[in-house]
Amino acid sequence: MELEPILQQLMQALRCLPGVGQKSAQRMVFHLLERDREGAFNLAQSLAEAVDKIGHCQTCQTLSSTDICGLCDDQRRDQQLLCIVETPSDVLAINSAASYRGLYFVLNGRLSPLDGLGPADIGLDKLNARLEKGLIKEIILATNPTVEGEATAHYISEMAKKHQVKATRIAHGVPFGGELEYIDSGTLSHAFSGRNEV
Amino acid sequence: MELEPILQQLMQALRCLPGVGQKSAQRMVFHLLERDREGAFNLAQSLAEAVDKIGHCQTCQTLSSTDICGLCDDQRRDQQLLCIVETPSDVLAINSAASYRGLYFVLNGRLSPLDGLGPADIGLDKLNARLEKGLIKEIILATNPTVEGEATAHYISEMAKKHQVKATRIAHGVPFGGELEYIDSGTLSHAFSGRNEV
Repeated sequence: MELEPILQQLMQALRCLPGVGQKSAQRMVFHLLERDREGAFNLAQSLAEAVDKIGHCQTCQTLSSTDICGLCDDQRRDQQLLCIVETPSDVLAINSAASYRGLYFVLNGRLSPLDGLGPADIGLDKLNARLEKGLIKEIILATNPTVEGEATAHYISEMAKKHQVKATRIAHGVPFGGELEYIDSGTLSHAFSGRNEV
Repeated sequence: MELEPILQQLMQALRCLPGVGQKSAQRMVFHLLERDREGAFNLAQSLAEAVDKIGHCQTCQTLSSTDICGLCDDQRRDQQLLCIVETPSDVLAINSAASYRGLYFVLNGRLSPLDGLGPADIGLDKLNARLEKGLIKEIILATNPTVEGEATAHYISEMAKKHQVKATRIAHGVPFGGELEYIDSGTLSHAFSGRNEV
């Protein structure tokens, strides 16, 4: 027996979700159609609406349904601080955890010459124009501590230097509650080289 | 910052999928909108189509886009054998693994008086009518080996007896490749009580 083409197609479509393979997709199909048709209908609607309406903020490049996102539009935030992150989910993470009250700039990627991603592809021309205006006094580089993330941070810090804007990098070290014996060596060496006087 | 209402709604909608919680839903939202909009669009379409077009086969109650499903319609299958399973995914599992070539009947549940599920709710009236016709010579009870699955199997075997139809239950025991020391006691006692002469 082959599965109904419609079901097979749905199973295939579900596999675009991260972490969903053949078996989970099958489980989802049967769950949705047997037990939660309303949920499936909702999901279809929400997906279509999101794909249709969500674009990128013209100022900070995060996901937004409006030309200017709520964060960029919020005048209570510190207009002189700009935090550079790789993805919109980083914005969410920082916003829900840190007491940071400045603005954001989302690269939607990182410099990666091997993948053909140059400065313009991650919006660095836009960032450059923004720094040129002179409103930003400090940029906080919060790209991931990977080789490409570090290279991107370095590139942007050079750009900031050109415009006489202060550039800082978030601290990398032992995570809160982490135990030294279980921390990888890269993190440990970061923690040592980034040590502060107490 | 609150997340955009549209994104929040999508995140909520994704949680109807089995095994998807807050964090995975968030990851899915950003993955879909950042990296796979086409996949998201496809998924929305497939879901809507499946919800719209997939119903239940009038004969065997499995998920089907037609009134009579492909399995029930297949004249090459043994029309005298009927395998009773709980869900459409059981049909798929048996079909792709076993050499069974008879027909199926999908209960879409099991007898569960505590949840208010009686014989009519799982289509046993329909099954009764089918046994009455006299075409079926043997029913194979392949409900799950849970308390409710066993009770359902027992109920149906009594029904079969009334119509002079042979009822058999699939074997439960040590799975192929399983090691005795890791098998739970319930399975082991099933394996012993169901032993065969060699």
